[in-house]
Amino acid sequence: MRQVYLDHSATSAVDPRVVEAMMPFFDMRYGNASSLHTMGQEASRALQDARTTVAQILNCHPEEIVFTSGGTESNNAALKGAAFARLRKGEKGHIITSTIEHDCVLNTCQWLESLGFSVTYVPVDTYGLVSQESLEDAITKDTFLVSIMHANNEIGTIQDIRELVQIAHDHDVLFHTDAVQSVTKVPVDVHDIGVDMLSISSHKIHGPKGAGCLYVKKGTTIDPLMHGGGHEKGFRSGTENIPGVVGLAKALAVGEEERPREMPRIERLRDELIEGASAIENSWLNGHPKKRLPINAHFCFRFIEGESLVLRLSGKGVYASTGSACSSKSLKPSHVLLAIGLPPEDAHSSLRLTLGRDNTEDDIQYTLKVLPEVVTDLRKISPFKASFQE
Amino acid sequence: MRQVYLDHSATSAVDPRVVEAMMPFFDMRYGNASSLHTMGQEASRALQDARTTVAQILNCHPEEIVFTSGGTESNNAALKGAAFARLRKGEKGHIITSTIEHDCVLNTCQWLESLGFSVTYVPVDTYGLVSQESLEDAITKDTFLVSIMHANNEIGTIQDIRELVQIAHDHDVLFHTDAVQSVTKVPVDVHDIGVDMLSISSHKIHGPKGAGCLYVKKGTTIDPLMHGGGHEKGFRSGTENIPGVVGLAKALAVGEEERPREMPRIERLRDELIEGASAIENSWLNGHPKKRLPINAHFCFRFIEGESLVLRLSGKGVYASTGSACSSKSLKPSHVLLAIGLPPEDAHSSLRLTLGRDNTEDDIQYTLKVLPEVVTDLRKISPFKASFQE
Repeated sequence: MRQVYLDHSATSAVDPRVVEAMMPFFDMRYGNASSLHTMGQEASRALQDARTTVAQILNCHPEEIVFTSGGTESNNAALKGAAFARLRKGEKGHIITSTIEHDCVLNTCQWLESLGFSVTYVPVDTYGLVSQESLEDAITKDTFLVSIMHANNEIGTIQDIRELVQIAHDHDVLFHTDAVQSVTKVPVDVHDIGVDMLSISSHKIHGPKGAGCLYVKKGTTIDPLMHGGGHEKGFRSGTENIPGVVGLAKALAVGEEERPREMPRIERLRDELIEGASAIENSWLNGHPKKRLPINAHFCFRFIEGESLVLRLSGKGVYASTGSACSSKSLKPSHVLLAIGLPPEDAHSSLRLTLGRDNTEDDIQYTLKVLPEVVTDLRKISPFKASFQE
Repeated sequence: MRQVYLDHSATSAVDPRVVEAMMPFFDMRYGNASSLHTMGQEASRALQDARTTVAQILNCHPEEIVFTSGGTESNNAALKGAAFARLRKGEKGHIITSTIEHDCVLNTCQWLESLGFSVTYVPVDTYGLVSQESLEDAITKDTFLVSIMHANNEIGTIQDIRELVQIAHDHDVLFHTDAVQSVTKVPVDVHDIGVDMLSISSHKIHGPKGAGCLYVKKGTTIDPLMHGGGHEKGFRSGTENIPGVVGLAKALAVGEEERPREMPRIERLRDELIEGASAIENSWLNGHPKKRLPINAHFCFRFIEGESLVLRLSGKGVYASTGSACSSKSLKPSHVLLAIGLPPEDAHSSLRLTLGRDNTEDDIQYTLKVLPEVVTDLRKISPFKASFQE
């Protein structure tokens, strides 16, 4: 059976070039980067090289890159780091985020609320965009941090991030963005965007799981999430995961090098998917028509359950998701889809198809053959459809 | 030139069997364990298998294992997790640890002090042992957590951990132990030891960097260090690092299977090292003569600087350390050596040799040929020796 992986926003295959770059650091050049001897120095050089590569791509200084275990850690480190730096001085304060953030931002915010911080969750429009006005209105004299994601992991909407950063900075408020989904898909230049902190995950960009980084602009005060031996200039202790870091840097380098050629190709395939799937009756595209990730297509197919759709498609070798992988096992409708105004029954009928480097024209043709059949089959047995027709 | 790696307490080569177990999960079976489709289910099964393997080895239930990014995260998660669970209810309280813990425990404790928690750092004797009396004396009505390491990372001393746990439990106080250095070297059975939490790192046991776990006894209340998608039953969010987790489980399995045969072999080699190095004049072994890790030899060579010794040995292909790799770039004398009563000048003259699976009799012979030469050379140019002789 043909296998078509269309769940690249959940995770992606490690690129063979990335695996090759990582391999020597498992059993040959396995030193601890803190060790003084030759093997330690070798590891330390690999770490420094990776840091320089990442910094060049993001357009910042190498010392502004803090390697972490992934996107969730980066987001937790940014938000809690800024909050703890205040808590330690006996201060609390106000954080602004949006209603469509990833769970790792939302749940961190809720936890910080339980510690006495206050949080405003600014709404989004039907496309998933945060308006400049709503951000500006939410800022109070106690606001110390805004965290709004660059591109949404479910519906793919890309924020006008530069303008939002400007508003925060006009009020002397720090700005963090979760760029886990956007980097290597669209340009991510921290200097251009102007953010103070930015999160990246390796496994979303054909790098290994368990690696990521947080850009922290020089002069930004955050407490570390992990204390210890003072690695990463004290921002993140723990023996550096050299194969992971090397893999992240290589994945970023390959992704950025290929972006000008790859993303237009993927976008064309994605547009075929959108055109084909939208032709299915009682279906529509969610998210912004233009301001969206080139890899993302996100639909509702009314009267069927997204979960059944994913399982049926899987049975035919097409791997997709209903929304965020992290909450795929939850029975609650997606908070993102509710936030853009969908009623719960439509939010339950969603399908996310996210493309990547390995997808071909044949993959899309196969998917567009299988998808309408599966939708038709499921609608035949749908209780929602029946009640609708009555 | 011959290369002899004697820095296994800093990090270790990933065993070829471990690399082999990890490989398919990079580019073939790369699904996100939270995804509903076939590839996600495959990843989920690998995760569950790894969890079962680790649980069997540690003698606990699979759901008591929380996978993390390593030892530092595990220790931070245990201490901060217990502390935050109180802070969230507006409570603070008292923590007890020892003066010879790893930096990731000590610096976490210091940071918690800055948030209003109180901490007692119980002293150790000249061997590095915490006495039952000093622990009992330190417990107050506010004490909610004791964190004392199983085996020390510098001098290799193994605590009478079972007795210490009993004292804490007699006072209804949680007990966490850092078993990063002890697991696969000596038996680590959480049921037998009786601890509530126990930290493990993968890269110290011939597994990959960037992976570890925390045993959390059922019913233990800790807040997560990382919030997000609710992975690891909510204890630790973030897409699971499947290759890392599979590698950790395999490394533990291989280590435990080989322990009955390997550790006596390594201990014999280590004893040869101790005998040979102790014959060098003005030198001695630190740590307990019997209650010590079979892989650990730790010496002082009076009148020379440990750092110079490490660099000279490295020049001859022998890779060692002065103490903890994490603080190897610090100019401060080891807090562990000061804690066992060494004066700063002796603490600066230390050398840690830690053996592993790859070491042979020839390695030891070579080291015992090189070491006395290097010590003699360095003493010739030692300003300390000169002042001593005057």
